Amino acid sequence: MKYEVNDPVRLTDDGRAILAIDQTLLPGRVAYIRLETPEQMFDAIKLLQVRGAPCIGIFAAYAMFIEAKVFAQVSSDKEHFYQQLHKFAKYLSAAMPSAVDLSWALKRMERTAANNMRRSFDTIVEAMRREAVQIHEQNIQTCFTIANYGLTLINDGDGIMTYCNAGALATSRYGTGLGPILLGAEKGMDIKAYVCETRPMLQGSRLTAYELVNAGVDTTLICDNMAAQVMKEGRIKACFVGADRVAKNGDTANKVGTYGLAILARTFRIPFYVFCPTTTIDVRCDDGSKMTVTERDGDEIKTEYFKSPVAPLEVKCYNPSLDITPARLITAIITEDGINYPPFDFN
Amino acid sequence: MKYEVNDPVRLTDDGRAILAIDQTLLPGRVAYIRLETPEQMFDAIKLLQVRGAPCIGIFAAYAMFIEAKVFAQVSSDKEHFYQQLHKFAKYLSAAMPSAVDLSWALKRMERTAANNMRRSFDTIVEAMRREAVQIHEQNIQTCFTIANYGLTLINDGDGIMTYCNAGALATSRYGTGLGPILLGAEKGMDIKAYVCETRPMLQGSRLTAYELVNAGVDTTLICDNMAAQVMKEGRIKACFVGADRVAKNGDTANKVGTYGLAILARTFRIPFYVFCPTTTIDVRCDDGSKMTVTERDGDEIKTEYFKSPVAPLEVKCYNPSLDITPARLITAIITEDGINYPPFDFN
Repeated sequence: MKYEVNDPVRLTDDGRAILAIDQTLLPGRVAYIRLETPEQMFDAIKLLQVRGAPCIGIFAAYAMFIEAKVFAQVSSDKEHFYQQLHKFAKYLSAAMPSAVDLSWALKRMERTAANNMRRSFDTIVEAMRREAVQIHEQNIQTCFTIANYGLTLINDGDGIMTYCNAGALATSRYGTGLGPILLGAEKGMDIKAYVCETRPMLQGSRLTAYELVNAGVDTTLICDNMAAQVMKEGRIKACFVGADRVAKNGDTANKVGTYGLAILARTFRIPFYVFCPTTTIDVRCDDGSKMTVTERDGDEIKTEYFKSPVAPLEVKCYNPSLDITPARLITAIITEDGINYPPFDFN
Repeated sequence: MKYEVNDPVRLTDDGRAILAIDQTLLPGRVAYIRLETPEQMFDAIKLLQVRGAPCIGIFAAYAMFIEAKVFAQVSSDKEHFYQQLHKFAKYLSAAMPSAVDLSWALKRMERTAANNMRRSFDTIVEAMRREAVQIHEQNIQTCFTIANYGLTLINDGDGIMTYCNAGALATSRYGTGLGPILLGAEKGMDIKAYVCETRPMLQGSRLTAYELVNAGVDTTLICDNMAAQVMKEGRIKACFVGADRVAKNGDTANKVGTYGLAILARTFRIPFYVFCPTTTIDVRCDDGSKMTVTERDGDEIKTEYFKSPVAPLEVKCYNPSLDITPARLITAIITEDGINYPPFDFN
């Protein structure tokens, strides 16, 4: 089965479920999971089967459409329908509170329902289907635009360090942080990607290395703790990362480890670029101090992916899901609107 | 089987082999391996079954004694004996050229042989046995002294971040970097250890967490890429690391990742301490620019310890074994001679 780079998430033909690549099984297995119930959808996000801020947004849009269809069938009236929809949106949002694209897509879908509330259930549901498809298609266009802006930051022969996965699997075509590299490779440029494995869930080795190797990019995998050495050796011209959430002032929440990498990049005077659609920018969040760092299960560190536990089972773990890179360490934030340089003040 | 904290390496009762804990099997299994032939000894170092700079020194001393006994039996004359011994020392040294304790112990054992060359084979071999035992006992004393100096740097309730394994498994009783923590725990102090897992071979989670939990220390395991976040949260009062090799000017070669951690510590104004016996200081090496970074097999990153490969098998890996932390990032280097502050100028 060939992995379809453009389709980490899509609607089934009957429109009753989402088909998604189970990203926890990559690179060993490319398997699609079918997600139909609210619980399945919640778990898919929580367990990182579906991941990447923009991808979760697309997923949430389709999820709202699918559940709206169900609610339309069982609701006594429009108010009841809307209440159920709102409750579902709140439920799904809790699967990853830090993902601003998730709440953005859920709100946009709720608004679509609200705007059509005087029409028939069929019309409401159809409007929501069209809205979800539009969110998906807009993301593809957005990624392409971001990739083109990002490409202007790279020269032939450059070494680019990546972190976590900001590729097609996290978004749709091209991805965000990987977009310039994939687009550059398509244009025949010689780009040397250095991929940080990104512990504990290894999105770098499992997903980014997989996408880049498939795309024929000259790819070198390293452990996260080797970044300083690789930078010191002069191999890296720039760091490209994605974002979970960007504050008005540019402070950026992303996979844990991004912050440390940004400090290293600054130390070695290497530009540090954040790539994201404008939907990832949370203008109601003034700065990073308003962002919360959620903790994940310590077993991800001790047992996940390993043949046998690599630490004494009784040892405590601290497993923050993300960290917040202060805007002052970020050279530029690249969105579909262009390359934004500091001081950042998004609105 | 209870792990014997004081004996990662010891001579068998018949004096014909070394018994060593196979550190690649920890923490799941505590198994001793018997090492008798030069090839077995070389592999034990190369494969990290025996590891930790001081521990490798003790190991090498016993290895020289064991092989000297064999050479004494098969040598036609003293010159032949000495040539064989010298050849073996060169061979074993190549298993980990960066480990200065290894070459130090090998040279000391060669010198012991040379100093006794006019005596009988039995006397030479007995002198070498005594020398090896003395190297071992001196290391125990040295570690204890280092631990006591280190303890003066800690206060009750402090959070200490550790990297790789600089514990008893790397040395002998107490270890170097872990010594103050273990000694502090023994004295009833409340020390909170934050252990970096240390990819790819996980000496932090497999060995350090194991030692500290066994010693009853309040231990929290993190992935290496979480260090910045943990520091930012104000949990860490100091970083304690060991060393593979320290140059005359204080530049320190240690497990890859140490350099990046030192940069983070400096950024967060956290003291960064290096612990090692004086035997790890290579005064003939002026500075870090004279040190070489060897590469290890990329499979350590992609497959080692994992149920199935976590990266596409065709992806290249870069796996530097160590990095070199510049002296300017080091707050102090603690040896059995005391706490050395910069500017460092060892002799």
